Amino acid sequence: MAIVEVSIAPLLGLSDTSLSEYVADAIKILEKSGLQFQLTSMGTIIEGDLDEILGTIREMHESPYKKGMKRVVTSIKIDDRRDKVATSEGKVESVRKKME
Amino acid sequence: MAIVEVSIAPLLGLSDTSLSEYVADAIKILEKSGLQFQLTSMGTIIEGDLDEILGTIREMHESPYKKGMKRVVTSIKIDDRRDKVATSEGKVESVRKKME
Amino acid sequence: MAIVEVSIAPLLGLSDTSLSEYVADAIKILEKSGLQFQLTSMGTIIEGDLDEILGTIREMHESPYKKGMKRVVTSIKIDDRRDKVATSEGKVESVRKKME
Amino acid sequence: MAIVEVSIAPLLGLSDTSLSEYVADAIKILEKSGLQFQLTSMGTIIEGDLDEILGTIREMHESPYKKGMKRVVTSIKIDDRRDKVATSEGKVESVRKKME
Repeated sequence: MAIVEVSIAPLLGLSDTSLSEYVADAIKILEKSGLQFQLTSMGTIIEGDLDEILGTIREMHESPYKKGMKRVVTSIKIDDRRDKVATSEGKVESVRKKME
Repeated sequence: MAIVEVSIAPLLGLSDTSLSEYVADAIKILEKSGLQFQLTSMGTIIEGDLDEILGTIREMHESPYKKGMKRVVTSIKIDDRRDKVATSEGKVESVRKKME
Repeated sequence: MAIVEVSIAPLLGLSDTSLSEYVADAIKILEKSGLQFQLTSMGTIIEGDLDEILGTIREMHESPYKKGMKRVVTSIKIDDRRDKVATSEGKVESVRKKME
Repeated sequence: MAIVEVSIAPLLGLSDTSLSEYVADAIKILEKSGLQFQLTSMGTIIEGDLDEILGTIREMHESPYKKGMKRVVTSIKIDDRRDKVATSEGKVESVRKKME
């Protein structure tokens, strides 16, 4: 199981309104996938099978073009641990414990 | 006011235990700064004056060396909007509204 | 045609020698793909069909596990322009012209 | 000595022409700093004293606002090794040697 952060930013001809609108379109695709995710102000954190996540991100990346955007910049960061099951919540909890 | 995401990753000689330990050290420095922040599994999102944030991140980047690490990779993403006050919560809220 | 930057960083138990060794393994996979790429000190820039690139990166991400690594962090940044053919060289050239 | 990759992307109201124009403005500031750098299609790689680099990036981040941009997204990745002098060229060379 992997933890992946993604941000999708359409460029060119972007107005203020449209940015969150395009993000919303991409998140709707993510919702349909059934994958667990957390929306943050700097990206979206997704947990699950890596290939399933990457397939969904590939679809999300396509969504702004469907509304006429001509250039999309998508950033993906994969944290893929295979010695034990690492959850998004578990990673944050581990830092919190060390802070006590 | 800017919104900044930071992740600090010490490299070389890292054991499982130490990663969250080093992140915890850096977050303690951030706590002392008084800046508002949100800890996520893929980074830390900080809100506030850009120069204050960058000064604090500079200190955070230094913390793993104090415990003997020899190489630190720090990633910073700045979203700095000046036409209106953009908060971390406001950005997420804006996407949620568009999804309805 | 898309331009994609990728960096692959195995974590846990990493010695100095192994980091460039693991990167070399991943680049060998990229070489076999026939895709055009440029190796830099902070990542590898690949040009070509987006799906072909993402398929190759998926293989590259797998390579450190084959040598026993337990955790790999892979960062991908996609710049995908569809209004005209954008090459890596053309983007740099465009900035250089504006600087004159 | 650190190796730092930076990319500066003005958002909102951006036309095709302006993107490379804004990057060119930022690179001119970098040129004046005297720091060694390499311009790539996905960012700029700078070598030198970390504080000097971060000070220069702070100025570069400011440049699009001077031409009326209202929102700038700047990404910074710091690779800061202190056990030996790591140069940008040396890192690439190290991977190439392992590939032979």
